Amino acid sequence: MSGKLGKGPPAMSTKEFDELFQQVSNWGRWGADDSRGTLNYISPTHIRSAAALVRSGRSVSLAIPINKVAGPDNSNPAVHNMTLTYDTRFDFGEPQFAMDYLGCACHGDCHTHIDALCHVSYKGKLYNGKPVSGVTSQGAKLMDITTLAHGIVGRGVLLDIPRLRGVKWLEPGEAVTQKELEDAEKSEGVRLGEGDVFLFRTGHHRRRLELGPWNNGYDGEGKAGLDARSMRLLHERKVSAFLPDGDGETVPSNVEGVAYPIHVLQITAMGMTCADSLQFEDLAKVCEEEKRWEFMVVATPLRLPGGTGSLFNPIAIF
Amino acid sequence: MSGKLGKGPPAMSTKEFDELFQQVSNWGRWGADDSRGTLNYISPTHIRSAAALVRSGRSVSLAIPINKVAGPDNSNPAVHNMTLTYDTRFDFGEPQFAMDYLGCACHGDCHTHIDALCHVSYKGKLYNGKPVSGVTSQGAKLMDITTLAHGIVGRGVLLDIPRLRGVKWLEPGEAVTQKELEDAEKSEGVRLGEGDVFLFRTGHHRRRLELGPWNNGYDGEGKAGLDARSMRLLHERKVSAFLPDGDGETVPSNVEGVAYPIHVLQITAMGMTCADSLQFEDLAKVCEEEKRWEFMVVATPLRLPGGTGSLFNPIAIF
Amino acid sequence: MSGKLGKGPPAMSTKEFDELFQQVSNWGRWGADDSRGTLNYISPTHIRSAAALVRSGRSVSLAIPINKVAGPDNSNPAVHNMTLTYDTRFDFGEPQFAMDYLGCACHGDCHTHIDALCHVSYKGKLYNGKPVSGVTSQGAKLMDITTLAHGIVGRGVLLDIPRLRGVKWLEPGEAVTQKELEDAEKSEGVRLGEGDVFLFRTGHHRRRLELGPWNNGYDGEGKAGLDARSMRLLHERKVSAFLPDGDGETVPSNVEGVAYPIHVLQITAMGMTCADSLQFEDLAKVCEEEKRWEFMVVATPLRLPGGTGSLFNPIAIF
Amino acid sequence: MSGKLGKGPPAMSTKEFDELFQQVSNWGRWGADDSRGTLNYISPTHIRSAAALVRSGRSVSLAIPINKVAGPDNSNPAVHNMTLTYDTRFDFGEPQFAMDYLGCACHGDCHTHIDALCHVSYKGKLYNGKPVSGVTSQGAKLMDITTLAHGIVGRGVLLDIPRLRGVKWLEPGEAVTQKELEDAEKSEGVRLGEGDVFLFRTGHHRRRLELGPWNNGYDGEGKAGLDARSMRLLHERKVSAFLPDGDGETVPSNVEGVAYPIHVLQITAMGMTCADSLQFEDLAKVCEEEKRWEFMVVATPLRLPGGTGSLFNPIAIF
Repeated sequence: MSGKLGKGPPAMSTKEFDELFQQVSNWGRWGADDSRGTLNYISPTHIRSAAALVRSGRSVSLAIPINKVAGPDNSNPAVHNMTLTYDTRFDFGEPQFAMDYLGCACHGDCHTHIDALCHVSYKGKLYNGKPVSGVTSQGAKLMDITTLAHGIVGRGVLLDIPRLRGVKWLEPGEAVTQKELEDAEKSEGVRLGEGDVFLFRTGHHRRRLELGPWNNGYDGEGKAGLDARSMRLLHERKVSAFLPDGDGETVPSNVEGVAYPIHVLQITAMGMTCADSLQFEDLAKVCEEEKRWEFMVVATPLRLPGGTGSLFNPIAIF
Repeated sequence: MSGKLGKGPPAMSTKEFDELFQQVSNWGRWGADDSRGTLNYISPTHIRSAAALVRSGRSVSLAIPINKVAGPDNSNPAVHNMTLTYDTRFDFGEPQFAMDYLGCACHGDCHTHIDALCHVSYKGKLYNGKPVSGVTSQGAKLMDITTLAHGIVGRGVLLDIPRLRGVKWLEPGEAVTQKELEDAEKSEGVRLGEGDVFLFRTGHHRRRLELGPWNNGYDGEGKAGLDARSMRLLHERKVSAFLPDGDGETVPSNVEGVAYPIHVLQITAMGMTCADSLQFEDLAKVCEEEKRWEFMVVATPLRLPGGTGSLFNPIAIF
Repeated sequence: MSGKLGKGPPAMSTKEFDELFQQVSNWGRWGADDSRGTLNYISPTHIRSAAALVRSGRSVSLAIPINKVAGPDNSNPAVHNMTLTYDTRFDFGEPQFAMDYLGCACHGDCHTHIDALCHVSYKGKLYNGKPVSGVTSQGAKLMDITTLAHGIVGRGVLLDIPRLRGVKWLEPGEAVTQKELEDAEKSEGVRLGEGDVFLFRTGHHRRRLELGPWNNGYDGEGKAGLDARSMRLLHERKVSAFLPDGDGETVPSNVEGVAYPIHVLQITAMGMTCADSLQFEDLAKVCEEEKRWEFMVVATPLRLPGGTGSLFNPIAIF
Repeated sequence: MSGKLGKGPPAMSTKEFDELFQQVSNWGRWGADDSRGTLNYISPTHIRSAAALVRSGRSVSLAIPINKVAGPDNSNPAVHNMTLTYDTRFDFGEPQFAMDYLGCACHGDCHTHIDALCHVSYKGKLYNGKPVSGVTSQGAKLMDITTLAHGIVGRGVLLDIPRLRGVKWLEPGEAVTQKELEDAEKSEGVRLGEGDVFLFRTGHHRRRLELGPWNNGYDGEGKAGLDARSMRLLHERKVSAFLPDGDGETVPSNVEGVAYPIHVLQITAMGMTCADSLQFEDLAKVCEEEKRWEFMVVATPLRLPGGTGSLFNPIAIF
């Protein structure tokens, strides 16, 4: 990671970052053995209220179709092989079957996926101060993706920053501040509250659809994301989970010496489950049509014991 | 497939089977180009009603944890490799990441998955009379798993046959009749209706947990499932989708000359989306506690273009 | 494939190509059931002579290191995952092990590999007139890569065209004629003879090393290779196998309506085992030092039943 | 690993084992940075002599066909998927291609493979005293399989123990002593010498072919192999590499507290390249016919940067 800083708000020093880490930390909040973090904010009442948002019965996928073609943001494309097709139909009698095989990195760039809390460590510690030695080449022994076995069910709130700004998308390197998130709330007439799943739209996928894929890493053009200070808002509001297009990060980072400050603050400090590489193109349209930016959200990672993440297909239900 | 017949009701001839195929066929019902089949029964009203069942806010996974160990019912275990762990932590600065890779057959035995309608053909035809030539080694060009991109959302109804019979599980080869499904409805105080997702429990997974895995194929001990005639009930009631433990089939089959009659009738004739290898052990307990066998169900396959199926993690929400 | 023609000798019509196919065809030459094709030219005497070329005891790999990074000529990079490393050393006692996993397309572009004779068909036929129906999604039932189970052992002859021309490499689209092959023989003081393995250097890999990878397919810049007519020479001389850098093809092809004429003539017509994507950078240096362009060659594909090809690491021994 | 001891010679204590480790150690012998170990014994003269053994021109594979079916000694079978077959022939014009994909653990049980020297560590050290920290989840940075890029070429000597004993195979748990190796030499009229590749036959694969696969690990029935003391002979004789059926180990081990003593002594102490799971069924027959147990051997692992091992197909040439 270079020391290059982004185009957003003034840079944060490593020292300020570590203070922010402490401010938003949830270590110990739900006990020394907690492995669910901010998902603890989702109560039965919250889920009931989320279900009550289902009125028109429309469901909308938030996933990008799995991309099997290598490109500047997809260096390890998914392997999808057909393993049985109908050319062999005379061998087996009836019926005939078609089958296939899928292989993919669980955190594949530009593949919609969700991170387990064991995915990120800071200074040798995982969320809740757990040691990194619990995650070895034999798999994750703690805070693996099966912590989410029964799925995430709750109220989703989309804050659509390009809509607020009146642009098609944010440009790489732009960072969204807490103030702007609050402005988006006002503009949409919603307010992130306890247990809510926060969907954050920078227009990353829209840009990709229109301009083509680009290298959005530290050795490339970068991407738009959150300003690290905005974590204070998510912390105060008791947000339960974070679903962005892109991955929430501003690249290059505005924090000196920390390459992925949003991942560190959300996952390691707050214990907030985060996803990566969603798309909100269909969702944004439906929100406009329904004139509401809140809905029921359901996200169900695969039950992969020892896994650090999972491809998934989260949906919004209106 | 052997001509061996199962332990259930009297055998059905191939001719009777073909007549049954015609009786329950939905070819043309939703137009010549339909690729959603019985999912068309799910209306906005249905989804709204399903969401209204969310009262206690409990969610329950219906998936088996992904099984990476070969066994008599898992000849192609999932490949799960850790690709980055914290032993390399001094190379990259902060933060550190753990990552992994998952490879798996989309219809892996004993892996919870869902079938696209292109997965099964009968006499050279897919559902709605479409030709098998649309599914080649380059992928499925029609009725692939992305037909389910926005997920299945609806009312789920569990018919728990071991509960009805007062046994822990059905034995391999036993077939459940329409009469028994109706008895289970009465016993549970529910009734399968238009748009409902039918969860069918034989106790297959319970048996596996207690006795260990067994070869449940035609070259092995077989498995418990549905009597082919019971498809008439699902057809009349306008069931939208089918989620079984096991895969719904009685093995050996009670139909002469047809190895997977349930797959053929549901997928090819009716256009009914079916899943495979779920587990209802947690669900059955929650149903008893909640004293209801109906709930909201959400199932979201991966968005895999050209795919014939997908691992997934469906959930019930109470 | 476009109808675009290459930069080499005048174009060949489809009709002329089909005549050439007949001229060089070996169908029936070694019996109706032969599946070894031109490898039949390798006699015990030939192998003994090849071994007699081993004088200095140097061995040289002809393979490119396996490339795990996507690029313009590597759209499906190999998947190489470490599956056990020494961070888990306290769990198992002594000793400790490190392990890994490799997944790769058997004909991956820019991965050194060898083709089985079942890899290419022309007008519905494989080599020796065998039907394509023998190769299905269940694997190849005839002429699979296990035909080469015991390896290829023989005399190798390198014809180094850039050396002849006094250039670093041939440019994409350039086709090498029979005349030029004969000139290279004279220049090097060798002559391709019965049973010889023909190593053909265009400098493809040298260009890649110096200028970086490029899209060398029909939708890209193309590549240098053989003129289709030069197959007559290989046929007359009774060459046993073909090991090129690139894959022997001139892209775009100089044959109207046939995208891979060299593959068709060598594999389908002649039954000549061909490899793909070798590198001769080390070899060319050793040849200069040893002042000879002939050596023992040993190539041993993996024993993959039903396989259409294999990654491999062929070597020259001096 | 259990403390259970094998059926062979008296057990060796951990202390005696550590003394043996020192006695056969080659650490420092070829310099502090050596990564080739006993392959240094192979001289140009040796290779020339090996090639001079090629008289009849027969080549014989020493590999087991790749096994895609799970079983008691194959818990992670190779993934072999056809990715293009001739059912799509009308889409692309001529010619048509068939292609496939292979994924496999590099040290898959019952898959013929070779170990890099980085594969085994003892008390935190690799061969030559190198630290295990050079092998991480990012790959092996030292002594990876590319150390063997140019292949192993030399004289092979088969010591066939079942032949000596007049049995079809050794039973699991039986250990072969130095004395018995010397007896086999006499019986066959050969003598292991400097630079020789030692092929060691216990009949493991023959037993597997006749009785079917069995669990040969510490939690199973075990296997026949070498007595740890016999390493003294290989050390004195300056053997360059070791190719066994099975993996050379007696399981359970006759060394207290060390589960894989042969691996530790050969790879970690001696720097001897070892292979695993070869078969000598064809070879043994040819040796009898040729009346000699020495031949040229060529073994060429894939050039996999960072790899700890590789599937391969070694051959003997007579």
